[in-house]
Amino acid sequence: MQTRTRRRKGNAREARRELRQAAAGKNPVHAGLEGGGYKPLKQTDLEKIHSTALDVLETIGIGDPSPEVLEYAIDAGCWLDDNQRLCFPKTLIEDTIAGAAREYTIYSRSPAHADVHVGGYHVNYSTSGEAVSIYEPEDRSFRPSKLVDLYDLGRLVDTLSNIHQFGQMVIPTELTDPVEHDFNVAYALLAATQKPCEMTFTDAKNVRPTIEMFDMVLGGEGRFAKKPFLSFGGCPIVSPLRFGEDNLELLVETSKLGLINDIAIAPQAGATSPAAIAGTLAQVTAEGLACLAIVNIINPGCPMTFAIWPFISDLRTGSFTGGSGEEALAMSACAQIGRFYDLPTSVAASMTDSKLPDAQAGFEKGITAVTAGLAGANRILESAGMLGSLMGCSYEALMIDNDMLGMAQRVVAGIEVNDETLSMDVMREVALGAGHYLGQPQTLELMETDYLYPELADRSAPGAWEEEGSLDIMARAQQSVKQILSTHYPDHLDAKTDAAIRAKFPVRLATKDMHPGNGRW
Amino acid sequence: MQTRTRRRKGNAREARRELRQAAAGKNPVHAGLEGGGYKPLKQTDLEKIHSTALDVLETIGIGDPSPEVLEYAIDAGCWLDDNQRLCFPKTLIEDTIAGAAREYTIYSRSPAHADVHVGGYHVNYSTSGEAVSIYEPEDRSFRPSKLVDLYDLGRLVDTLSNIHQFGQMVIPTELTDPVEHDFNVAYALLAATQKPCEMTFTDAKNVRPTIEMFDMVLGGEGRFAKKPFLSFGGCPIVSPLRFGEDNLELLVETSKLGLINDIAIAPQAGATSPAAIAGTLAQVTAEGLACLAIVNIINPGCPMTFAIWPFISDLRTGSFTGGSGEEALAMSACAQIGRFYDLPTSVAASMTDSKLPDAQAGFEKGITAVTAGLAGANRILESAGMLGSLMGCSYEALMIDNDMLGMAQRVVAGIEVNDETLSMDVMREVALGAGHYLGQPQTLELMETDYLYPELADRSAPGAWEEEGSLDIMARAQQSVKQILSTHYPDHLDAKTDAAIRAKFPVRLATKDMHPGNGRW
Repeated sequence: MQTRTRRRKGNAREARRELRQAAAGKNPVHAGLEGGGYKPLKQTDLEKIHSTALDVLETIGIGDPSPEVLEYAIDAGCWLDDNQRLCFPKTLIEDTIAGAAREYTIYSRSPAHADVHVGGYHVNYSTSGEAVSIYEPEDRSFRPSKLVDLYDLGRLVDTLSNIHQFGQMVIPTELTDPVEHDFNVAYALLAATQKPCEMTFTDAKNVRPTIEMFDMVLGGEGRFAKKPFLSFGGCPIVSPLRFGEDNLELLVETSKLGLINDIAIAPQAGATSPAAIAGTLAQVTAEGLACLAIVNIINPGCPMTFAIWPFISDLRTGSFTGGSGEEALAMSACAQIGRFYDLPTSVAASMTDSKLPDAQAGFEKGITAVTAGLAGANRILESAGMLGSLMGCSYEALMIDNDMLGMAQRVVAGIEVNDETLSMDVMREVALGAGHYLGQPQTLELMETDYLYPELADRSAPGAWEEEGSLDIMARAQQSVKQILSTHYPDHLDAKTDAAIRAKFPVRLATKDMHPGNGRW
Repeated sequence: MQTRTRRRKGNAREARRELRQAAAGKNPVHAGLEGGGYKPLKQTDLEKIHSTALDVLETIGIGDPSPEVLEYAIDAGCWLDDNQRLCFPKTLIEDTIAGAAREYTIYSRSPAHADVHVGGYHVNYSTSGEAVSIYEPEDRSFRPSKLVDLYDLGRLVDTLSNIHQFGQMVIPTELTDPVEHDFNVAYALLAATQKPCEMTFTDAKNVRPTIEMFDMVLGGEGRFAKKPFLSFGGCPIVSPLRFGEDNLELLVETSKLGLINDIAIAPQAGATSPAAIAGTLAQVTAEGLACLAIVNIINPGCPMTFAIWPFISDLRTGSFTGGSGEEALAMSACAQIGRFYDLPTSVAASMTDSKLPDAQAGFEKGITAVTAGLAGANRILESAGMLGSLMGCSYEALMIDNDMLGMAQRVVAGIEVNDETLSMDVMREVALGAGHYLGQPQTLELMETDYLYPELADRSAPGAWEEEGSLDIMARAQQSVKQILSTHYPDHLDAKTDAAIRAKFPVRLATKDMHPGNGRW
């Protein structure tokens, strides 16, 4: 009996696979869905926040401008006040907003994956996080993350359809030399996936040589500049209201080069921005507009993500809480502020304070991920695999979050209302006839295009679930991680290019770790 | 050392408790928050759904009207068509909507809990579900639910601040006599909590005697009618587009009595309503408006929850999936349709297909609960403790969901934007001074009124978490359930009233089970 049941299940799966292939590209969920149905702020709120941010920039200003930035800014009409803070006239900020890039694209290196279009109400989910540790489920502990983890996490993302960009999830803690760090992070991303990528540089001097590496991969000088497949992270602001030296230098460099400035501005409410969330929004908006002004003074129209990321403190301890309701609200509000300015945005969502992928991680991630998407954030970073308020990263959480993000995106995708979908004729036929819609042609037609089926989430009958061992989603995720990572060694760099890169750069990812049988999985 | 750490922790807790008492009533989260920031449907979508529903009611009609309902309806201008289906003229439906009750209140029996105001954009979360089984974490199995479970679940809800109404979560499977069932469910609710309640009757004849029981508790005949603390569930529609005999009878009876008609209309997309979600919305709207017409024909202005609950099928198997993105969308859309009509609403959200409180349960519950709240559903039922697509109920999930609902409500509560919260002066002081907001008076002032702290969700540092045993939220929930249920035996029925009820009704809840030391916890 059991064999027959299994066989039937196999056939059903096969039939579904065929139907899915037939419906390919019609999946209800994909990169670039339109968000915007959720508006946490009223129009008057947005105007007040904007007006306060302009006041802040004109009368409080931003501290610690570098000499180079100062020269650019003074030329453009800014001034240093008595406290040596750089103040921005309102007209300059208004002109900056009017002239700034409205959108940009991070390209996929393969037609198998979508490009990430950043602007309008488009919604894309990306990993990122730069955690320093990896969660070990066997003993519920964390170990330092290594370069090979970044590569393995990328291989996993390469297979996960609800994650549209692979941003740097972990830091290779064994690489302490900034040069080695930057080149090796770049290499690990390239080797792991052809999806659009994101990384952060520890030294602005490494940007140009790394672009040479990218051009080698694309097969010719200047190709990366034409179709960039990677955005450049960094935090040029040290809140409250000061520039950060190293990352400001990076911002200047990438602006000069006309690259995508994929910054993040992350004050922490109650610690480095006001405890009142509205005040935090005003401050982070001012900090974001200051960066936007600098980028546009240096290179008018150069793309910059309006990436205002207000983090939240647990005010009992002062420590960062990424999984709070306040966090969901603040990030969604920032997505809306970005739309108010019609700028390309990113936010951080799907964070959790839990140290493992339990029910807490589930609801904290689900609530923050869906609200950010509904608010129309263009790129939602930190959105998969992160644990412990970004302290750690988990292979299993990454798998689980892929399902969670699918569900969130199904909500963002919304409901199509037209004469056909309103189904008057189908209702009449069924109400007067069979009394049941299961066999209706409409039902069969929509089952693969309007409905999303999870990969890991369990929908079996209770009896079947018990028969299969009463597993939770964590156990199923562990099985899937092992299955994928022991077999999926993609061939994204051809041998010749790989050899050329290794000849030119100090690549530390061992060739044996890039093939099956290395004993890791 | 450990003792000292604990003592310090105790002092911090004590300090926080005092601060909280000082800020009592200012918690950012409470019953009746204003939702509405999320609008899944456009105004034109709403108009199309409305217009289709009117067409359905006029040209397809509703099957199986009872003779009594038929008489009422024909008198009001309806007609039976050639298929013996009851058809409603558009003008009657439009008049019904115009004249229907806009709101109602379900009262708390104690000032310690809030009344539930149903109408406008008010958002309240309630249990319900009528599951037939209880999840046993020890061996990950389900056992049949009993009357004492309903009482114990109610005692738990009595202590959980983010759940505003206690609806009947389980069926006492040992009580097969409908009379005993109804009286005992009512008694168990009354004994367990003074929060607003909800229950479903198996026989309409039991309604009047049960109201006598309620009047005994309130201390006088007619008192329940004046301040009802309980709403009456039921499903008067058998989708697609037919009346259900027993529950229609109940609807007629409660309408005559002027009670709150707390129905639920639950077609299942792809099975008993169209697979196209828009079509399901049109059908369920028609079904809801038909009930509203009947209620208002019988007793104009009698309150009825516009409770259109489109359930979703997994179209691969035809079985119900409560935890899907499609479900979050469909329920949120129905909350919005209710607002379109300005009727008091309920939806079902925070369901999951998982059989246990794992990460899947977390994200499925979180996403459906927050979207329903943001859409402005007045009462969100099924919202805590349910597992396995409503098949089972879990004490631990109920505890965990209380935190999840707190987070969802913190999102619904939104951001207050005004001159004070925009914090210009605080920003200036900090930017030019200390560079840090932690010690600011504003921060201390807002820490208990603007920020919500979870009860079970972990926010500790990784080291502290490991020291405390690397527990997941499920393990912490198990500890809390035992702690609360072994000690919290509330005295909601005085001895005299209790004796009087027991003398008049066949109460099956043993007195010994209502006191500590009964060996259950």
